[in-house]
Amino acid sequence: MSSTFHPPKRTLMGPGPSDVNPRVTGAMGAPTIGHLDPAFVGLMDEIKELLQYAFQTKNQLTIPISAPGSAGMESCFVNLLEPGDKAVVCQNGVFGGRMRENVERCGAEAIMVEDEWGKPVDPNKVEAALQAHPDAKLLAFVHAETSTGARSDAQTLSALAHKYDCLSLVDSVTGLAGVELDVDGWEIDAIYSGTQKCLSCPPGISPVSFGERAVEVIKNRTTKVQSWFLDMNLVMGYWDGKGGRTYHHTAPVNSMYGLHESLVILKEIGLENSWAKHAFHHEALAAGIEAMGLGFVVDKEYRLPQLNSVTIPEGVEEAKVRAALLNNYNLEIGAGLGALAGKVWRIGLMGESCCKTNVLLCLGALDAVLTDMGAPINSGKAVAAAQAVYAG
Amino acid sequence: MSSTFHPPKRTLMGPGPSDVNPRVTGAMGAPTIGHLDPAFVGLMDEIKELLQYAFQTKNQLTIPISAPGSAGMESCFVNLLEPGDKAVVCQNGVFGGRMRENVERCGAEAIMVEDEWGKPVDPNKVEAALQAHPDAKLLAFVHAETSTGARSDAQTLSALAHKYDCLSLVDSVTGLAGVELDVDGWEIDAIYSGTQKCLSCPPGISPVSFGERAVEVIKNRTTKVQSWFLDMNLVMGYWDGKGGRTYHHTAPVNSMYGLHESLVILKEIGLENSWAKHAFHHEALAAGIEAMGLGFVVDKEYRLPQLNSVTIPEGVEEAKVRAALLNNYNLEIGAGLGALAGKVWRIGLMGESCCKTNVLLCLGALDAVLTDMGAPINSGKAVAAAQAVYAG
Repeated sequence: MSSTFHPPKRTLMGPGPSDVNPRVTGAMGAPTIGHLDPAFVGLMDEIKELLQYAFQTKNQLTIPISAPGSAGMESCFVNLLEPGDKAVVCQNGVFGGRMRENVERCGAEAIMVEDEWGKPVDPNKVEAALQAHPDAKLLAFVHAETSTGARSDAQTLSALAHKYDCLSLVDSVTGLAGVELDVDGWEIDAIYSGTQKCLSCPPGISPVSFGERAVEVIKNRTTKVQSWFLDMNLVMGYWDGKGGRTYHHTAPVNSMYGLHESLVILKEIGLENSWAKHAFHHEALAAGIEAMGLGFVVDKEYRLPQLNSVTIPEGVEEAKVRAALLNNYNLEIGAGLGALAGKVWRIGLMGESCCKTNVLLCLGALDAVLTDMGAPINSGKAVAAAQAVYAG
Repeated sequence: MSSTFHPPKRTLMGPGPSDVNPRVTGAMGAPTIGHLDPAFVGLMDEIKELLQYAFQTKNQLTIPISAPGSAGMESCFVNLLEPGDKAVVCQNGVFGGRMRENVERCGAEAIMVEDEWGKPVDPNKVEAALQAHPDAKLLAFVHAETSTGARSDAQTLSALAHKYDCLSLVDSVTGLAGVELDVDGWEIDAIYSGTQKCLSCPPGISPVSFGERAVEVIKNRTTKVQSWFLDMNLVMGYWDGKGGRTYHHTAPVNSMYGLHESLVILKEIGLENSWAKHAFHHEALAAGIEAMGLGFVVDKEYRLPQLNSVTIPEGVEEAKVRAALLNNYNLEIGAGLGALAGKVWRIGLMGESCCKTNVLLCLGALDAVLTDMGAPINSGKAVAAAQAVYAG
C-alpha cells in the first residue's frame, strides 16, 4: 500500500532545481482558489509586474507559461516561426541542439552556428551566417548554457540580429537573476527562463517575455500556431490585463503562489545584489576547486557563477562520487550532459543554494569523498581556500 | 511593494479546481529534491502504479504530463496523428471543439460528429461517420464533458472505433475518479485527465495513459512529433521504469508530491466508493436544485454527478449571483462556457468538494441570494429537500 511521501532533506547544488526558500514552499501549500477568482487575477497582475522587474522589461506580454522551461522554449519557437521560415541557431551546448529540434519541428529550417562546448557563441560566426542567409527570420541563442556554464554576449548577439533584420530569441533559463540580464536595454525580442534555477522556486513554470516586434509577428501569422496549449494569441486572452480574462487553460494555481513568493524575495534582495551574490560565492567555490587541483571547463571571462562545470580527476568514476555525496552528505551535484557526459560535474550555485554554508559543505564533502577514493587531488586544501576568500 | 500572497479561503464548487485536501497541499510544501534523485524516481514509480489503479489499466505508459489538462489533450493528438491523417471527432460541448483545433493544428483532417450540447455523443452518428470515412485513424470523444455535464458511453464508442479499425482517444478530465472509468475493460487506446477535478489536487498536471496499440503507432511514426516537449518517444525515456532515466525536461517536483498524495487518498477511499460518493451527494444537490424550481441541462440518465449544469431563472443576471456567492459566502460556482455562457451555472461536486457540508452550503447560499434578488424560485425549500435525501 502506498503512503505519504516524505522527501529526504537534500542540499541542491546541481544544475537545478536549486534549494527552495521555505517561504516559497509555504506559499505553495496555501489553499487553492479558482483560476478565474478575482483574487487570483490580482495575483497574476503582480506576477507580471514582478517578472517585468526580473527581466528588466516593460514588455506587456511578460508572463509565466504553465509548464517547465522546455515548454517555454517551445512557446517561443512555435509562436514566432511558420513552416518554411529560416532561423539561425547557435549551438555551444545541449540547449542549442534542443533549439534546432524546435525549429525543425515547426517545419522551419535551422542554420546552425556551432561553437565548442564551454565556449561562448562567437559573434563573428553569427554575423557570417546572418550575411549568408539574408532571408533568416530570427536568431536564437542561449545566454546561459546550463550544460556547460558558458555565458554568451546577449547584447551583442541581439544587436547583430537587428542589424540583419532578424528577431532575437534568447534562452536564459539559468541566467535570470543569476547574472546581468537586461531585456529592454539589450533589445531582446523573445526570451524564456525557468523557475528552478536562480529564482529558487520548484520546477514547473517558465517565465517568458515577448517584445513589441515579436508580438506583431505573432499577431500577423498566416498559419495557426501548431500548439493550441502554447498559442500566445489565445494565452494573451487569459493573461492580458485589459478587460476581462478569457478561460484558456486552468493555470497551476499553487505553483503560481510559489513563483510569486520567489519573485517577492528577489525584489527584496534586489536584482543587482542577486547578481553580486552569485559572483561572490562563485569566487569562494572556484578558489576551493582550484586548490583541490581541479579545473573549470569554461574560461573565467565567460563563466557563469551559478553553473560550474568542473573537470573530473583522472581515473575517478564520476557517478560513484555523486552517489557518495548524495548518500553520505545528502548533497546533490549534477552530472555532465551531452558531449560533456562523464567528463564533468556541474556544481550549481543558484539562488538559495548560493551561500557560504553550501559552498563550504560542497568543498568539504567533495574533498573527503575524492580523498577516500584515492583520487589525485590536493587533499585538505579546498575549504581553507574558500574560507580565505570569505575572510577577504 | 509586493508582498506575500494570502489567498482567501474559498469553497470551490465550480468546474475545477475543486477543494484540495490539506494533506495534498501539505505534501506540495515539502522540500524540493532533484528530478533525477533516486528518491524522486521511486516516487515516479509509485505515481505510475497509482495512476494505473485510478484509470484501471495495466498500460505501461501511464504517466502524468508536466502541464495542465489541455497539454494532456495535446500530447494525445500530436503523438497519434501525422499530417494528412483523418480523425473522427465528436463534439457535444466546448472540449470536442478544442479536440478539433488540436487535430487541425496537427495538419490532419477532423470529421466532425455533432450532438446537441448537454446530450451524450450519439453512437449511431459516430458509426455512420466511421462507415463514411474508412480511412480514419482515430475516433476522439469526451467521456465527461466539463462544459455541459454530459456523460457519453465510452465503452460503446471505443468498441465502435475498433470495429472500424480506429484508435479510441478519450477526454476524461472531469470523469476520472468521479464516475466509472475502465480503461482496460473498455479497451481505450489513449486517455487524458486532469488533477484539479475529482482527484482534488491543485491544477497543473495531466495524467495520461496509452495502450499498446497507441504506443505502436507512436513508435512507428514516419514524421517527428511536432511538439518536442510532448513527444512521448522522448518522455518515455524519463518515465520508463526499465533501465536508467534519461533527462528530458525538469519535472514539476512539488506538484508531483501533491499528485501522489491525492492518489494515495483515492486508493484509501477506494475507486468504487469514490464513484458512489459522487452519485450520492449529487442526489442531495439535485433534490435541492429541483425543490428551488431550477432545472438541469442534462437528462438524469446521462448526467455527471460531479458537474451540474443548472438553468438560470428568468430575469436573473447570472454573474451577479456568482459574485454574491463569492463575496458573501466565499463560495465559487462556475459560469457557463461556450454555447451555454450566460445560460447555466456549473456546480461542481468533485472529490473533496463532494460532501454534505458543501451541498448544504451551496443550496442555502444560492437560495438566499436568489431570494434576495427577487428571482422566481421556490424559496426556502432547497436545503430541506437535500436534508431529506441525507436522512434517507
